[in-house]
Amino acid sequence: MVLLRRLLGDELRRQRLHQSRTLREVSAAARVSLGYLSEVERGQKEASSELLSSICTALEVPMSVVLRGVSDELALAELAQSSTTITSVSSGSLPDVVASAA
Amino acid sequence: MVLLRRLLGDELRRQRLHQSRTLREVSAAARVSLGYLSEVERGQKEASSELLSSICTALEVPMSVVLRGVSDELALAELAQSSTTITSVSSGSLPDVVASAA
Repeated sequence: MVLLRRLLGDELRRQRLHQSRTLREVSAAARVSLGYLSEVERGQKEASSELLSSICTALEVPMSVVLRGVSDELALAELAQSSTTITSVSSGSLPDVVASAA
Repeated sequence: MVLLRRLLGDELRRQRLHQSRTLREVSAAARVSLGYLSEVERGQKEASSELLSSICTALEVPMSVVLRGVSDELALAELAQSSTTITSVSSGSLPDVVASAA
């Protein structure tokens, strides 16, 4: 199962690293604990809507941009999952399609 | 502050009503309580990643599609918020821009 919190954590970390900022800097700007932000980035904790908003504000990235990135990653993951299903069902009769989708 | 759980709840309800399904039907298919689903749809409760996945599966809608819808709504809300800020700062000198963005 693809979990939203993992993809969301990946996206938040990607945005932070793209800005060359540390966990300490962003957590201070967002007024969340460093440990909490770290757990959110690793997909170990669900971010509440309020704290997600604070983190996006601290990163100076619109939340819609973060969610769009997550949605795109999720679409790829869903495609990969459905390809795996096709491979299982067809016993490998569509290797080219699977390879191009993955 | 625009909250993710409110927009997510709106989107889940929109998908359910588009299919003319009841809270009872979808909550049973998703194996969540009717009260929980109702609270999620009204933006009163954060859906965990696992339960969001179950609800999307029950609705037979890829989670990426739900998130894409939420991202689009969020972008509009952010635009409306920034327009409000512009109006406040400029004391109403950009009425046409604000009107077209809202």
